[in-house]
Amino acid sequence: MIFEDMDRIVFAGDSVTDMGSPTPVSEGPWDNNLGDGYVRQVYALLGACYPEIRLRITNSGVSGNTSRDLLERFDRDVLSLNANWVSIMIGINDVWRFYDTPGMADIQVSEEEYGNNLTKMITDLKKQPQLKGIFVMSPVFMDINLEDIMRRKHESYRQVCEKVAKENDTIYIDVQSEINEYLKTRPATFIAPDRVHPNPVGNVLIARAFLDAAGFDYEHRCREING
Amino acid sequence: MIFEDMDRIVFAGDSVTDMGSPTPVSEGPWDNNLGDGYVRQVYALLGACYPEIRLRITNSGVSGNTSRDLLERFDRDVLSLNANWVSIMIGINDVWRFYDTPGMADIQVSEEEYGNNLTKMITDLKKQPQLKGIFVMSPVFMDINLEDIMRRKHESYRQVCEKVAKENDTIYIDVQSEINEYLKTRPATFIAPDRVHPNPVGNVLIARAFLDAAGFDYEHRCREING
Amino acid sequence: MIFEDMDRIVFAGDSVTDMGSPTPVSEGPWDNNLGDGYVRQVYALLGACYPEIRLRITNSGVSGNTSRDLLERFDRDVLSLNANWVSIMIGINDVWRFYDTPGMADIQVSEEEYGNNLTKMITDLKKQPQLKGIFVMSPVFMDINLEDIMRRKHESYRQVCEKVAKENDTIYIDVQSEINEYLKTRPATFIAPDRVHPNPVGNVLIARAFLDAAGFDYEHRCREING
Amino acid sequence: MIFEDMDRIVFAGDSVTDMGSPTPVSEGPWDNNLGDGYVRQVYALLGACYPEIRLRITNSGVSGNTSRDLLERFDRDVLSLNANWVSIMIGINDVWRFYDTPGMADIQVSEEEYGNNLTKMITDLKKQPQLKGIFVMSPVFMDINLEDIMRRKHESYRQVCEKVAKENDTIYIDVQSEINEYLKTRPATFIAPDRVHPNPVGNVLIARAFLDAAGFDYEHRCREING
Amino acid sequence: MIFEDMDRIVFAGDSVTDMGSPTPVSEGPWDNNLGDGYVRQVYALLGACYPEIRLRITNSGVSGNTSRDLLERFDRDVLSLNANWVSIMIGINDVWRFYDTPGMADIQVSEEEYGNNLTKMITDLKKQPQLKGIFVMSPVFMDINLEDIMRRKHESYRQVCEKVAKENDTIYIDVQSEINEYLKTRPATFIAPDRVHPNPVGNVLIARAFLDAAGFDYEHRCREING
Amino acid sequence: MIFEDMDRIVFAGDSVTDMGSPTPVSEGPWDNNLGDGYVRQVYALLGACYPEIRLRITNSGVSGNTSRDLLERFDRDVLSLNANWVSIMIGINDVWRFYDTPGMADIQVSEEEYGNNLTKMITDLKKQPQLKGIFVMSPVFMDINLEDIMRRKHESYRQVCEKVAKENDTIYIDVQSEINEYLKTRPATFIAPDRVHPNPVGNVLIARAFLDAAGFDYEHRCREING
Amino acid sequence: MIFEDMDRIVFAGDSVTDMGSPTPVSEGPWDNNLGDGYVRQVYALLGACYPEIRLRITNSGVSGNTSRDLLERFDRDVLSLNANWVSIMIGINDVWRFYDTPGMADIQVSEEEYGNNLTKMITDLKKQPQLKGIFVMSPVFMDINLEDIMRRKHESYRQVCEKVAKENDTIYIDVQSEINEYLKTRPATFIAPDRVHPNPVGNVLIARAFLDAAGFDYEHRCREING
Amino acid sequence: MIFEDMDRIVFAGDSVTDMGSPTPVSEGPWDNNLGDGYVRQVYALLGACYPEIRLRITNSGVSGNTSRDLLERFDRDVLSLNANWVSIMIGINDVWRFYDTPGMADIQVSEEEYGNNLTKMITDLKKQPQLKGIFVMSPVFMDINLEDIMRRKHESYRQVCEKVAKENDTIYIDVQSEINEYLKTRPATFIAPDRVHPNPVGNVLIARAFLDAAGFDYEHRCREING
Repeated sequence: MIFEDMDRIVFAGDSVTDMGSPTPVSEGPWDNNLGDGYVRQVYALLGACYPEIRLRITNSGVSGNTSRDLLERFDRDVLSLNANWVSIMIGINDVWRFYDTPGMADIQVSEEEYGNNLTKMITDLKKQPQLKGIFVMSPVFMDINLEDIMRRKHESYRQVCEKVAKENDTIYIDVQSEINEYLKTRPATFIAPDRVHPNPVGNVLIARAFLDAAGFDYEHRCREING
Repeated sequence: MIFEDMDRIVFAGDSVTDMGSPTPVSEGPWDNNLGDGYVRQVYALLGACYPEIRLRITNSGVSGNTSRDLLERFDRDVLSLNANWVSIMIGINDVWRFYDTPGMADIQVSEEEYGNNLTKMITDLKKQPQLKGIFVMSPVFMDINLEDIMRRKHESYRQVCEKVAKENDTIYIDVQSEINEYLKTRPATFIAPDRVHPNPVGNVLIARAFLDAAGFDYEHRCREING
Repeated sequence: MIFEDMDRIVFAGDSVTDMGSPTPVSEGPWDNNLGDGYVRQVYALLGACYPEIRLRITNSGVSGNTSRDLLERFDRDVLSLNANWVSIMIGINDVWRFYDTPGMADIQVSEEEYGNNLTKMITDLKKQPQLKGIFVMSPVFMDINLEDIMRRKHESYRQVCEKVAKENDTIYIDVQSEINEYLKTRPATFIAPDRVHPNPVGNVLIARAFLDAAGFDYEHRCREING
Repeated sequence: MIFEDMDRIVFAGDSVTDMGSPTPVSEGPWDNNLGDGYVRQVYALLGACYPEIRLRITNSGVSGNTSRDLLERFDRDVLSLNANWVSIMIGINDVWRFYDTPGMADIQVSEEEYGNNLTKMITDLKKQPQLKGIFVMSPVFMDINLEDIMRRKHESYRQVCEKVAKENDTIYIDVQSEINEYLKTRPATFIAPDRVHPNPVGNVLIARAFLDAAGFDYEHRCREING
Repeated sequence: MIFEDMDRIVFAGDSVTDMGSPTPVSEGPWDNNLGDGYVRQVYALLGACYPEIRLRITNSGVSGNTSRDLLERFDRDVLSLNANWVSIMIGINDVWRFYDTPGMADIQVSEEEYGNNLTKMITDLKKQPQLKGIFVMSPVFMDINLEDIMRRKHESYRQVCEKVAKENDTIYIDVQSEINEYLKTRPATFIAPDRVHPNPVGNVLIARAFLDAAGFDYEHRCREING
Repeated sequence: MIFEDMDRIVFAGDSVTDMGSPTPVSEGPWDNNLGDGYVRQVYALLGACYPEIRLRITNSGVSGNTSRDLLERFDRDVLSLNANWVSIMIGINDVWRFYDTPGMADIQVSEEEYGNNLTKMITDLKKQPQLKGIFVMSPVFMDINLEDIMRRKHESYRQVCEKVAKENDTIYIDVQSEINEYLKTRPATFIAPDRVHPNPVGNVLIARAFLDAAGFDYEHRCREING
Repeated sequence: MIFEDMDRIVFAGDSVTDMGSPTPVSEGPWDNNLGDGYVRQVYALLGACYPEIRLRITNSGVSGNTSRDLLERFDRDVLSLNANWVSIMIGINDVWRFYDTPGMADIQVSEEEYGNNLTKMITDLKKQPQLKGIFVMSPVFMDINLEDIMRRKHESYRQVCEKVAKENDTIYIDVQSEINEYLKTRPATFIAPDRVHPNPVGNVLIARAFLDAAGFDYEHRCREING
Repeated sequence: MIFEDMDRIVFAGDSVTDMGSPTPVSEGPWDNNLGDGYVRQVYALLGACYPEIRLRITNSGVSGNTSRDLLERFDRDVLSLNANWVSIMIGINDVWRFYDTPGMADIQVSEEEYGNNLTKMITDLKKQPQLKGIFVMSPVFMDINLEDIMRRKHESYRQVCEKVAKENDTIYIDVQSEINEYLKTRPATFIAPDRVHPNPVGNVLIARAFLDAAGFDYEHRCREING
């Protein structure tokens, strides 16, 4: 697996990352410090399967954040933590604001700005010597209907996300594709009633996509225990 | 307008009707007695535009109800109220349970049973001498994508609803069509974030569909005030 | 209709405007951000009937505000928002404080000061280039008995309000007259138990008075949908 | 004064009597057991001025009660208490329901029924051997404008109340007249914002009207202390 | 009566004055702004009996205050209010701290300091031109047993209070004597379970002592109404 | 010490015993199951000093109970528990009701009835074969002034308590004497602000009186640990 | 995998199973219906990895239950659900009560009774025709020190559990062994602060032990998605 | 006994000291100001047995504190209080963080730093002229199994604590030994379910260890009362 003993991993994002954790930054196994979403799921699966690797996992998600909001707090809430690994999952609100508050132009983020915001975060991260790698998770809108106006715009942003991630040599995780595959069998209502905020099943799907990219092996403990 | 002074109107349904009102049955302008949905909107528009017509409006919606659940409480919560008008809006949960809890066969309602449940309610209502009319509002799933698996099943049930309503000479209100038209301009996220529970805009859309069917005239007071 | 795509409308006022919204300024379709009064009603009716026009609607009402209080926060809570349309409904507390706290001279606002406060707000607004128009809604005391001491004083202030509004070429909305007409049919207890704070019916009455002045057409969508 | 050592006094009524006390019946100096209205005021003034007379004062008010509601619970909540004195203040809701819920005919109480209900209560009380006297307090609507439709109907009921009270030899207390006199100086907003539920000043006015009828002497303790 | 139209009266003190009102300073008939003690009782009796005299009554009591605490906040919470009348009731906590926290020397106030603190407050008040008079109410410990160690120390402080009040030509109100007389008939448990914090009966006793000193006439309205 | 391994001890009483424990009967070290008074103190001291003796300690106190109330629930809440030891501390409310609610004759318990109630409880307990002993703790009023009217009546009842306890061969614990001695050094305000409900210091005083009667040795563990 | 489409799985147990879910029985993906423990983890992993298999998962855990408590409610809360698979994890409280409440003999469950209770549950389940299999999960005390008195007694009970499970041909899951292995690397404080109630990591460990026994394949979806 | 009249004693520590008291510093017999742990127990036992000695006892415990955290706030929360006696009980969190959050290196405190932190606190205290003595209580992990990895590390830290305490001539209290002795008879579950936070029995054990070191005599009052 990609993570090493005493590595620190910071998850930056919006409400999908935050999921009720204390904002803006929190960590630790107590209370609901990691939130009730994929971050806690990642923490729990890693902790259960790799007891010999000590990791520090931090939730830096804030509900409602667009990429512009995240960029504004990036110094304080991400860079200053000196993480070894940073995972960024942002963008759904950049798109959403065009549709739930179409009259509020100044909180909508254009595709171009979205790309620039992402690029700026990655560039700043790369300057940090302790950094071992950056994950960029695609924002997810849990609908496979590309005729849906919001899903279509989302797909555009997702492509920007993928392009920026790949051009900057980060580890791009196409969560949307994973979800698209899943939605061929079960509809969104089974994993995220409002198509954005995942329930426990949706959280495992996102966590698994992340862990796959990190070389996680669910069977790992067997070797430890029998070895 | 179709309603006369001292008429009683009962709205039976699920959470879309209930919208936080005390369950199972409640009424009156106090507190949140009519809930925060289309029922209160109907009450407020009628009260504002037709002050000379005294109406009693009752919310008999219960969150989570399928047509089976509503039928089970129909005697106690609808028939016993001896209403002059009854409006029924039911069915979304009959469909939904196939998708959010696919493993729970015994709370899913088949298309056939749905039709029978609706028919039984209408038949029982028609035996009441004080009854002046029955409204049947189509259940609504706020998506226009007929390739969506849940939307497609919903459309089937809606057709059953329309068929039963028309064969039994009730006033059928095709709320789904109204919403479909609307969704050509704005996506569901603007009127119902989870595509089922309306926000204030969605509530007006449903209330307006109902009021249109009742011959409501928004300009009505002008004649009163100027006359 | 008077409003155009992407216009911003700010409603400034007291508790009749605020109605439980987060203070001092809030907006958006989430939670109770627009309050539970006429502002949300305006938002919902416009949103339902004119989906093609994107509007930003902001609640800048604060409970207990007199015109003096509103003037003090006008820069921060109204002017700084750079609205295209501002609606002001203020004055009932200017009058009320003479009657519920007759001994507190320094929170009572004289008729003269009331006029000056209103004039100052309008004058400042008119300097803003983006502004398209100002609505001045008369404060309302839901009583038709002009022998009532408080109603009589209120009538004086309302006349000041009308005079200032008209002399400054704003759109004056005589909500009091609308209510007076209504009260010929139903008493205040049906629309505002304490004759100041409206219930759902009262909110529609105020919203309708506002929308009438804005050229709102409740039937509007018909053309859209059928066209 | 009319009350003697170890007398029990029961106050029956609606929300004006109840004022937040535990329902349906409560007593004692603890917590808010007597409610926050005129009953506690009566208790406190009698306790302060007549320490030598031990009295048991019971609040049997229930919010929202009409005379019909009170009659239905009269056996359980009043007669069974075997009081020496009973005070009845009921009727405002009998009138109010015609105006806040004009469509709900079956919770409105006609003038005739109101008289009958009152008469029945008094007749039943008079059969009790321990009873020393009955107070009938007029229901109060804190408005002096007899052209107000609700105030006018209220006046009719008040006259029925007075007639029944006097024909049955009870102690009739014309609280409405006391309030009318007061309203010549200060408007209702100073004593009861919604013209029905009194604030602390309004509570003293009602308590004082009651105590006057009971021969209460505010200066009483002087003789005790100096004697 | 001593008070004139538009006079302002400020009540400074500890928890006996505060009685749950918002701290440090609050006023107005709304909510619990005057607290649930003698200040509200004074407000209500004056309002009911003297409607023609408009008064502003302010509660400046803070729970737990000693005379030292009150002196520290006297500028901000009393002098700055520019009252016409100030009533001070302080000292019970100066004594109490010797008995409930005997080890905390630095929050205990000596008799000498108590006298100085009181003198300083009165001296500062007297410099204000708008001031019409100062009431000094004795602190009260509701026990008549002078052999009780705390009651005995309290009596000493009360004498200091009386001496300071009289030497400075304030209106001294011997509330302790009033209570002592009362306790000859009923024990403390009837008016103040912990012998310090009054219940409704105790509040009337203190309010009455204050009102007597102000020339209050409970029968006053008779002349108004009949005159 | 008097208690043996696996003995069950039940504490019956009023609020001094209850102290916030779940009513009517509760036990166990979790939450606040033993209340926050002397019962928990007894449990904790026994548990700490005698780990080798397993005891079951049950709180059967109910706030506000007089001896009459306790007798009424004695079968259900005490006898049915088949305790080896029962401790009864009751009577303060029998006396108190004469003073805080002097007008409520039917909840006051006469000295004679008090004696009879106590006797009945003891007699019933003595019929139980598993019973090893009964403790009767005197009710306590934390005042040494026998001229205080309530303290004097209390002393009478305490003597009845002592007489009944001794005539029936129970273990009488004169808690009042312990408190009286203590009050020579510190006033009641240090151990029980309202002279009835103890604070932590007061709780230790009562617990210690009980434990002394049971032969408790605070030093006990020394022998265990060193032995 | 062992589970088939439309199977129902019921998890019976104590607080480790319940983990805050509504008691006694609850299910569904809403709110916290499955609790915050291993049951939700099992639901989420199965849902994410096997979308094509619809399962009904029910939490029938109740905090504090011993095997005796579970047996008493087994008819109502387990058998009546007609599950295809039942998993039982019970016994930690049978042991615990000897140590946290050593004096309460009647809520402690002997080793012999524990075995009988388990046997009875299994025997009753086996009579049900729809049943496909029974899982028996060993109770877990998260300590590897067999010299710990409670851990030692627990080990005895665990052996009884294993023996009963195996003699009755159920699927025995030795969760304790899994935990023991884990504790070689990380101490209990990392997975269950009080050694009984798991945190998120502990929940995954238990869920994984269960899923292993059911032939769960974490990589499963790969074949689905790529196939 | 070691304490003298008017001495002030400050207890500094972590959650074992804090136990729900207001943070960071609080005192007084009101509410839960001393927390619900050993500090309140010490206060209550001293108050009950030594009424003639007035003491000021302050809780300066803060949940989660390591020795580093305590040192950081030592000036503000301990030194500035100018106590006569200071008791320090710190260190369990220094150890714990290695095991519940093994990945968070920067909140773990090494053995060396722990010793230095303790030394610094003691050195600073010794400079204060009013100081009469310092108690150092060993941190406690309620387990006797030295093979437990966390217990073993804890034992190392405890030895550092003892060494520093003794080299600096403070009064060292070996609470761990007291607990170890106790655990020979009852397991940790009886006194501290998670082996760190004591229940009422555990609190008495810690309080008793402290009081023993202070020369406390539980029988003390006898001489006072009889003398």
